[in-house]
Formats: sequence, C-alpha cells, structure tokens
Amino acid sequence: MKAAVLDHYDETLTGADFVRYGDVPDPKIERSSDIIVRIAGAGVCRTDLHIVEGIWRSKVEVALPYIMGHENAGWVEAIGRGVESVKVGDPVICHPLVTSGHCLACRRGDDMHATDSRFPGINANGGYAQYLLTGERSLIKLPKTLAPKDVAPYTDAGLTAYRACKKASRHLLPGQCAVVIGAGGLGHIGIQVLAALCAAEIIVIDRSDTALALAKECGAHHQVKGDGHEVAAVMELTHGNGAEAVIDFVGEGDAVAKGLTMTRNGGVYYIVGYGGKIELPTIDMITAEKTIVGNLVGTYPELVELMALADRGLVNLATREYRLEDANQALKDLHHGRIKGRAVLIP
Amino acid sequence: MKAAVLDHYDETLTGADFVRYGDVPDPKIERSSDIIVRIAGAGVCRTDLHIVEGIWRSKVEVALPYIMGHENAGWVEAIGRGVESVKVGDPVICHPLVTSGHCLACRRGDDMHATDSRFPGINANGGYAQYLLTGERSLIKLPKTLAPKDVAPYTDAGLTAYRACKKASRHLLPGQCAVVIGAGGLGHIGIQVLAALCAAEIIVIDRSDTALALAKECGAHHQVKGDGHEVAAVMELTHGNGAEAVIDFVGEGDAVAKGLTMTRNGGVYYIVGYGGKIELPTIDMITAEKTIVGNLVGTYPELVELMALADRGLVNLATREYRLEDANQALKDLHHGRIKGRAVLIP
Amino acid sequence: MKAAVLDHYDETLTGADFVRYGDVPDPKIERSSDIIVRIAGAGVCRTDLHIVEGIWRSKVEVALPYIMGHENAGWVEAIGRGVESVKVGDPVICHPLVTSGHCLACRRGDDMHATDSRFPGINANGGYAQYLLTGERSLIKLPKTLAPKDVAPYTDAGLTAYRACKKASRHLLPGQCAVVIGAGGLGHIGIQVLAALCAAEIIVIDRSDTALALAKECGAHHQVKGDGHEVAAVMELTHGNGAEAVIDFVGEGDAVAKGLTMTRNGGVYYIVGYGGKIELPTIDMITAEKTIVGNLVGTYPELVELMALADRGLVNLATREYRLEDANQALKDLHHGRIKGRAVLIP
Amino acid sequence: MKAAVLDHYDETLTGADFVRYGDVPDPKIERSSDIIVRIAGAGVCRTDLHIVEGIWRSKVEVALPYIMGHENAGWVEAIGRGVESVKVGDPVICHPLVTSGHCLACRRGDDMHATDSRFPGINANGGYAQYLLTGERSLIKLPKTLAPKDVAPYTDAGLTAYRACKKASRHLLPGQCAVVIGAGGLGHIGIQVLAALCAAEIIVIDRSDTALALAKECGAHHQVKGDGHEVAAVMELTHGNGAEAVIDFVGEGDAVAKGLTMTRNGGVYYIVGYGGKIELPTIDMITAEKTIVGNLVGTYPELVELMALADRGLVNLATREYRLEDANQALKDLHHGRIKGRAVLIP
Repeated sequence: MKAAVLDHYDETLTGADFVRYGDVPDPKIERSSDIIVRIAGAGVCRTDLHIVEGIWRSKVEVALPYIMGHENAGWVEAIGRGVESVKVGDPVICHPLVTSGHCLACRRGDDMHATDSRFPGINANGGYAQYLLTGERSLIKLPKTLAPKDVAPYTDAGLTAYRACKKASRHLLPGQCAVVIGAGGLGHIGIQVLAALCAAEIIVIDRSDTALALAKECGAHHQVKGDGHEVAAVMELTHGNGAEAVIDFVGEGDAVAKGLTMTRNGGVYYIVGYGGKIELPTIDMITAEKTIVGNLVGTYPELVELMALADRGLVNLATREYRLEDANQALKDLHHGRIKGRAVLIP
Repeated sequence: MKAAVLDHYDETLTGADFVRYGDVPDPKIERSSDIIVRIAGAGVCRTDLHIVEGIWRSKVEVALPYIMGHENAGWVEAIGRGVESVKVGDPVICHPLVTSGHCLACRRGDDMHATDSRFPGINANGGYAQYLLTGERSLIKLPKTLAPKDVAPYTDAGLTAYRACKKASRHLLPGQCAVVIGAGGLGHIGIQVLAALCAAEIIVIDRSDTALALAKECGAHHQVKGDGHEVAAVMELTHGNGAEAVIDFVGEGDAVAKGLTMTRNGGVYYIVGYGGKIELPTIDMITAEKTIVGNLVGTYPELVELMALADRGLVNLATREYRLEDANQALKDLHHGRIKGRAVLIP
Repeated sequence: MKAAVLDHYDETLTGADFVRYGDVPDPKIERSSDIIVRIAGAGVCRTDLHIVEGIWRSKVEVALPYIMGHENAGWVEAIGRGVESVKVGDPVICHPLVTSGHCLACRRGDDMHATDSRFPGINANGGYAQYLLTGERSLIKLPKTLAPKDVAPYTDAGLTAYRACKKASRHLLPGQCAVVIGAGGLGHIGIQVLAALCAAEIIVIDRSDTALALAKECGAHHQVKGDGHEVAAVMELTHGNGAEAVIDFVGEGDAVAKGLTMTRNGGVYYIVGYGGKIELPTIDMITAEKTIVGNLVGTYPELVELMALADRGLVNLATREYRLEDANQALKDLHHGRIKGRAVLIP
Repeated sequence: MKAAVLDHYDETLTGADFVRYGDVPDPKIERSSDIIVRIAGAGVCRTDLHIVEGIWRSKVEVALPYIMGHENAGWVEAIGRGVESVKVGDPVICHPLVTSGHCLACRRGDDMHATDSRFPGINANGGYAQYLLTGERSLIKLPKTLAPKDVAPYTDAGLTAYRACKKASRHLLPGQCAVVIGAGGLGHIGIQVLAALCAAEIIVIDRSDTALALAKECGAHHQVKGDGHEVAAVMELTHGNGAEAVIDFVGEGDAVAKGLTMTRNGGVYYIVGYGGKIELPTIDMITAEKTIVGNLVGTYPELVELMALADRGLVNLATREYRLEDANQALKDLHHGRIKGRAVLIP
C-alpha cells in the first residue's frame, strides 16, 4: 500500500521533507479481534510535529521507519475471526487506543489507562496510509449523516478537547466563567463542547484574529487578543476573581503561568497542550486552593458522545483536505500556522 | 489580658525569643455577631513559624505587633446583641475563619472562599492570649466528651488534614492505595481520617522513626522510611503503578517531586504542606493524566464532621501542653522537631 | 395595606371567590435580620390552588385567615438593624424560604432543609399583598436587565424546575434523552434549563397543543401528545430503551406510572408535580435499578444561578399580569387551564 | 455431570423436594470466549426460593428443567480459543452476569446494564452442578488467601450488598446515620461494607436476636429489634430526624413503608430486598425531598473491590456448607430461617 513514512527525526523541523511517500507492506490480521480499516482520512496533529522533532522518543517505544497518523476513520476492510460487532464495509471512526479490555481500568470504562494497549500512529503504524491495523474495541460505527473523512480529527483533537471540556462542564454553573486558551484545532472544538454542555460564559484567548473570529462562530462570548494583557482582560471580565475553569490548549510559553494566574481561587486549570512547564510555589496552590488537571485524549464512550454531538450539529469541525502524497505540505502548513481548523490527509 | 505578642519578624528563626509574653488590651464586642471566647488552649502550628519568618507577609496584610494563634477553643465569654446560636459559658471550638455568611461561596457551604472574612491569628489577633474576638458563625458547641484544650489543634491542623483526606477518600476504592507524606501534626490525623473514611491501603513516609511508629498506631498499613529510597519503596508496594492518591503534608524539599512521581497515572496528588515548589513539564501531566489538588484548611461543616469523628474516638490527637508564658519554648521545640503530635498553649 | 386574603378552604374549588381583596395590617420589622419588601409582582402557583383545597393543611401549620403568595419580587422597603447586604430601594427577588443560616444544612448550602425556617405564602403571610415580611438571607439583588414583576415566578416555579433539571443535567450525556412531562408554568422553564445545561435530546409530553407549541419554542426536540400513547411514543424515540431521565411536572393521574415506565433501566425519574401516588413492586425497582428523586424548590445559590440564566436570556418566562384585586380571576384561569406560562399579581 | 435440577415450580414452597439431584449432560465450549468452571461451591440465595415460587417467570425467559445457582466459584476447567486472561487450573470467582463487552453500558463500566448478556442460574444453567458454562469477562482470579468455596456467595449476596452500601457510603458523612434493615445473608455483609467505607453510625434492624448479635459482630453500633417499634427507635437514635441512608435488605411486608418513614428529609432509601411494594403519595416525595434507589447486583470492578476487602479481612462471610445432593435441605433451611449467614452447596 501507499503510505507517508517517517524515516528520521528532524529536531529543528527545518528539513525539506519530514516524511517520505511510498510503498510499504500491507498490514495483516493476526489476532482474532484484529481489524483492518481502509482509511478515508487521517488528521494531522501538532503531536505529529512533536514526533518528528523527537520529543516523544523518551515517552514511547517506537523504531523508525514507521507511519504516523493517530486520527483515523474509514471503512472496515477485513476482520479477525472473533469479531462480532462490526462487519466488512461498515463506515467507522477509530478510537485512537487499541486495548484488550481485560484490565481493571478498561472494566471501569477508563480505557485510556489500560495496562495493555497500543496507540497506532504513536507507538505502532498509523493512518498516514491506505490501510490501518486496529482492533474491534476501537471502532464506532458512523451514522449516515457523518462521512468518515470529515470526522477523522475528532478521534484525537476532538476527543481530547471533548474530555477536558466535559470535565469542566461538570462543575461550571450558570454565572460562572470558562477561559479557553488557544482556538486552534482542539480549542475551536472545545468551545463548542462547552457551549453544548453547560451555561458558563466562555472567554477565548488567542494571538490570531482569524482564530478569534472562529472562536466567536463557535460560541465564545468574549474574545481576548493574546497580546500580553490577557490576564488583565480576563480579570476585568470576571470582576477581579478569575475564571472557575481555565482550559489551556497551548501548554507552552507563558500560557501556563498566565492560565494558572487567571484561575479563580477554588477553581480548576485544565492542561491539554504541552511543550512547556508548570512552575509554582506550593504555598500558592494552598492559599488559592486551586486544582491542576491533566488530560489524556478520552475514552471510547466519550468518543461515542462526541459523535452524538456531531450528529446533531452541536459540534462542527473545520477541516482542510490534502492528498496523502502531500503530507509534507500539510505538516509544514500546520507548523507555520497556516491552517484554520484541522488538516486531513486523503489517501 | 495576658498574651504572647509577635513584635518583629525573625527570618532565620535564630533569635532568643520569637514572641513576648505580656499585657495587652482586652478585645471588645463591636458587631452584633461578635463573640469573645475565653481561651482554653491554642494550638502551635508550623504556620506560626512561617509567620515569624515573614513568609506570609506578602500573602496577608497584618501589622506588627499582633497576636498569633489560629487553633483555638474555650468557652463563650461574651456575645453580641444579634447572637442566637450560643450562650455565655458554652464550651466551643473555633472554626479559624470569621465570615459574614452573605457571599455566594458561603451560601454554597464553601466558607473558606468567602469574599469577606478575617482569619484570627493570621491577619487579626489570635489565640495566644486569654481572650479571642471571633464571630457567631465560627463556633461549634462541644459535646461533654471533648474538653476544649484537647481539641484546639483540630481547628487548623486537624481540619486541614481532614479536608484533604476526605477529598481523597471520595475516590479511593478498596484495592487502591493512599500515600501519606509526613506523619507529624497534620499527617497523624490524616492517617486516622483515611482509615475512618475509606478502605484504601495506607502507606506512610517519614524520616523519623518516632513518627512512623505513631503512623502505625494511627492505622497505617505500611511505614516507609524517608531515606532517599521512598519512591522505589512505594512503587514496590503498589506493583509498579504508584498510588491512586498521594497526600503531601510536607510540601517542600524533594517531597513534591517524589510525591508526584509516586502518584499513579490517572491519580491525584494532594498538596497540603508548603515552602517548596511544583515543577514539572506539561507533557508529564498529559501523558500520565494526573491531577494536583491544593488544600486550604476546611469548611465549618467539615469541622463539625471532624468533631463527630473525635467524639466517637475514630480520630485521636496527640498533644503536648505548654503554659502560654512558655510559648517560645513550644515554638522552638516545634522548630527543632521535638514535638510528637501537636503543642497547645494553656493561658 | 391591601391584600388578597384566604379566609376559608374550598375543597372542591367551586366557590365564587377563593380569596378576599381588602385591607390588612402592615407587616413590621421585629428581628434584626427582618426585611420588608414592597411587592412588584407575586406569581400564582398551582400550589395556591392546592392550599385553597386544603391539601397542605396536614403538611404545614397555618391558621386562616392568611395571605398566600410565595413567588415574590419587588424593592426593599425597610430593613432590620443588623442588615448589611441590601439597602432600601434595591430591586430584589425573594428566595421563598426564610432561614437563620445557623443549622448544619444551611452551613452546607442546603438551605431548603434548614431546621429553622418559615415559608411566606405557605406557613406565614405571603406576597398577595402590597408588602411582604421576609429576611436578609432570602434576598437576591436584581441586575438592571431584570424587572422584579417579570421575574417573580422564578422564585418557586422557576427554581423548582431549575433544581430538578439541573440534577438531571449532571448525569445526562450527549446521546441520551430527557423526557419532560408537562409543559406548563414549571415545565416550560425546565425545558429551557435542560437545553442550557446539557446536550440531551429533550422529549416533551403534554395534553395541550398550545403547551407543546410553547415547548418547541423553549427548545424541545420532540413533542408528544399526551393522548394515551405517550409511553409507546417515548419508547420509539428512544429505540425501545426509555429515557435516561424523566422529569415529571404533573405527578398525578397516570403520569407517575407512565413516567416510571418510560424511564430507562439504570435511569432516574424526577418527581416534581404532586397530587398522585407512586405505586410499584419493589422487584421492579431492583431488576431495572431505577432511581426516584423527590424535588423541593431549590437553594438560594440555585436561584442566583437561575437569575444568571435569565440575565443572559437563556431562560425566558411567559407571564400574564393581573391586578392584585383580580386575584380570584387569576386563580380561576389557572384552575381551568387558561394560562400560558405563569400568572403574576401586580399590587 | 451431577446437578440439582429444577423440574417444576412450587408456588407455595410446600412440596417435599424443590430440586432433583441427578445426571445431566456436561456443558460445552462453543464461543471463543467461553469458559467452563469446575464448581467448588455455589451459594444458595433467597432468589432461588423466589425462582421455585415462580416469581421470576414474568421477568426472565427460562424453560424448565434447568439448573439454579448464580453464586459460583471454582477452578477453570476449559477455555475457548480466544481466552487470554485466565488459564486452566486458575482458582476463580464468577461475576454472575456473562457479557460480550461491546455495548455502551459495558464500555462505561456499567456491565450490569449490558444490552447483550445472560445470567447463569437465572436465565441459563447455573452452578448447582459440578460444572458451569460462563465467559472470560466474568472471571476474577482469586489470591491464595481466598478459597473458592468460601467466597462463592460474594458474587451475588455479597456484591449486591456491596454495591448498595458503597452507593450510600459515597454521601454518608461523619455524624450521619445509616440504617440497615435485615441482617441476614446480604445484610451482614452490608454492615461490614459500611463500616469499611465510611464513618456513619450504623443502626441495624432485625426480628431475630441471632441476626442482631451477628450484626454487632459485623460492626453495627446500634441494634434495634424489629418488634413493631423500630421507627420510633430509629427516630430516637437520630434525634427525631431519621437516617441519611436506609438500606433495606428485606423489601417486603412493612419494611418498605417503615424504611421510607425513617429516611431523613433529603436522605436516600436504598431498596435491595424485594417481594413487597412501594406505595406513597407524590407530595411526600416532594416535601421531604427523598430519593429511592434501586439496586441490581453490582459490576465486575465492584466484585474486584469486594474481593480486596475480603482479602484484607475487612469483610467476612458466615457460610454453612451442604453437599450438593443436599440442596433441598439447604433450600428448606433457608426458607425456614435456619441459616446464619449463607448456605453453600459443595459438589
């Protein structure tokens, strides 16, 4: 099959090409729960750039060359002998993690913390390709209203935004405020999720006017330019108190320190973006009684919930399509901030 | 009245005396909800040492000279005209915060985040004295089984440990583990609270063998010497996973980094002690999906709950009594780690 | 002052007049926390009809003659000496319960379960009058966007619907369904609250086409005519499973049995309306693992939350104004189902 | 193999024999996830008597003759081809429900509400036999400290008591009360679970002095004789308020009405036992804002949690062993109240 293969890391992201488009062996069914999906579309994620940079080398075990792409949707192409819940030809979206389902975390519905799992596109071959090897427990059948290539980025960008914003929505009450830092691929979905799941006022911060305009369309009540005065702006909008929830889709540079500062006493700072550092004196955590919550993608049932929102039109995804052979262009456009919403590779 | 007064800061804690025992004017009833309590005992807290050091200067506004002592209990001596819920002579324990009760936080039961409050012993005169000015909303009547001087340290040390451990107990399931870092004044109460409120296995870490022996009496299932190998010890006890909850009563030195490391993926690190710093890359918060929870004393209803535990003998407080005129001795004994449990000043 | 006074019960609701419009003594400030409010509007509630019928006689102690009216808003006319949080002239809405704030329920934010309280209009004189005696803890200052007479019915009809629907919204996930039985004074607010606080699909059942049309305007996704086939209709809309939440604003006749039947296994039936009876074999509660939740008005913070929704236009109240002297007309129009939304008496 | 077979219903439970001990065909592996367990012990449950009476006929589809026994433990005898998580010879306890794991309820960890399941002993052949056909997802490996025959009754009696009491423990605070109605096979485990998971005061009601003595051993703080005055007794013990949680393991006769009456306003009544009826006016649910919670066994992870409690000795099960061929004797002893704790059939 054709695929866009990562042969070597590029720590400065300055090389001519990040990946190589070419032929690789087809994936094969081995376990009785294995599934092969014909890819309709694969989302391009900032994490892919971080992988190219080598940031993930110390976090996961994967040997180059391999195929990136952890946001996948398509049609069932082949199934293992034990598979009962989908059949060949079904349109499906792929939860990014492949689990056996036997550990206690899975049995509690918390599959992202499975003790036995693999993550195609991160620590196994992913979906920058014509076909993907995944497992029965990862597939959600799509309703006719949703085309696989249009929804692919929901599996990670969408799901991660959904989980973090759903957590926040559980405690945000009418009259309270949520700050969303960053209205990009994840953030613009997060805003819609907040608007669908609670009645908090939503304040969005971004450096880009285009992103802020998208934020407004998505349901943000206030747009704040990330020009250095964003803490003061949030404080003014929140009567000097800060916000009950801050969801940080940036997670690097000064976003973290500012995000923590604009979190109200007793409030919660959700960290989703990464690359930066949390640094604060323990006394500040105590006197302000704040909570810092990490967020790792989302569970299979949460992806089902997100598809229900998408099916009802409560969440819409801005995508831009590239041919799979133009994967390098898509990665570079993302790197240089030239994509509104999310890039999707079409094989 | 007699009081132990703080006249000046001592950043190195090396002076001959920290406070001065002598005469000061009696407090007076002004507002209709004011109460004057005759002090039976006032707990001596590590925060008092931090106040002497000047650490709190930037956090609260208070002018020297003033009277420390935020862990108070005694008998109602005088009441304002609007007071209905206690009468002169009642034995009472004092919730440390004095609030008006009108703000939304108070109305939600979250009085520690009142917009209008004072904290005797921190930003107003406290209980290292014969009498204390407090408010009607701060008092809990004591049952006959509990003598005021014996329970005074519950108001801050006990309540802070209670709130943090109660939060942990809400998610700790049978088969899961809690690590308590530090088995001192707060920690030894926290262990008992955990044992009373959930069935988690309790692992306690301390550098002192005496503290570990106390931890065992309090219900700890495993004692780990804080000798540099505590992370490895916890990992072994938790089958390589770490603990679902870590409650850090130290909060300085390497306790924070180690506490975060021994928190299981998906688990919660509760920070109670302070003096140190939280420092970690945002990527670690994401891949491990951990949560960091700050803890600020506890609410009035939580102090009522803690008194219910004490009344039934489920929590016991190790105290050591000093005469109020020996306040310096108590502070120095605390500074030099010579107190098992909690010092109480008796006027 | 002028008031509409209840002199005698009328069990069949067939008398010429239910109340008598005339002069009564003005209320007076007695306690330091007392407040007198000049009434701008008083909502007319089905409970008032139940009071006239004598249904509440066995539930509360009140001696006739007295003044009904438990949904009140207006302006502060006079304040007791201890009052600090409002001043004369402030536009206010009145939480229906007057509490001292000292009991543990109040301290936990659960003021509806105060051990010491009175409920003007139920067990004390209410707001079918020019002036109302209430307490400082019952008042919420209104923003300029909200006129007192327009919001009066929020205090009970609105607040009761809010609390029940807020409870449901905490567990309703995208892809799940809520059934609202009855789209009258409470129901039409409940629908808007659900739409604001969660993304569940909302199915509304009512016998009246007018009510169903109002339900649609309020955000209902499906309208089901209450013509005897409503259980089958809900089952079809929910793929044979029933709804995860059923909120029953009728609570009498066959609504209860049908509401329980259309609740999904593992789901929750919220009972808000009353007059009928719950009757079912315990085995049905066990095999279906359903939950039945009673609902009693709502807390002060919940009324603040509801005002935040109203202020942002997320909840709108359909009202119809009557002069106070036409109170009997309003009560009869309500009794005969001639009011869309909620009647309000203007003194 | 040998089994105790139910050939016909006996609505009055007056027949000479309820079941017939004899030879039946061995169960066979068919699906790739099938497991055959060699039974070490099968618990005898009041539900088995209800099955004999024919009460369950309208609830589940099962054709006679069939084999009862839904509380099973033993050793893995044979496994299907897809089984990975256990191996032949492993000592195991069997979660009572066999599920495929693909439905959304299972994916959320709520396996008792699986859309696709069977319940051996209820709607398929159970464990009153030498061998049982079950599924991979139902098995929990036992630690060496726990012998299969000793723990069999935990799978239903224990698990049902655990789930109901765990729910209650999540909201029971120190200073609050739990009432346990019935200290039999389920109740005596429930008491231990409450004592392990929270610090509420536990009041136990039973008609039998033997049961009350067992309750005391299990950790009950107050024993109340079920002699007709139990409501008054509970009211006195709770200062006239009633209990914040009532867990009713009887669920028939006057237990239900009394249980609801002794539930505090704002409190929760958990219904576990069955046979009777819930009957109360909706107005009582509203003015008292009570909640009624149904309880259906428990999830797989909850059985893991219960095994953790048993492994640490926090829960102990009183059992009495009978040979499988004496199944009728066991059933009759249970019917006539002659068993303390739980009967277990040993093949």
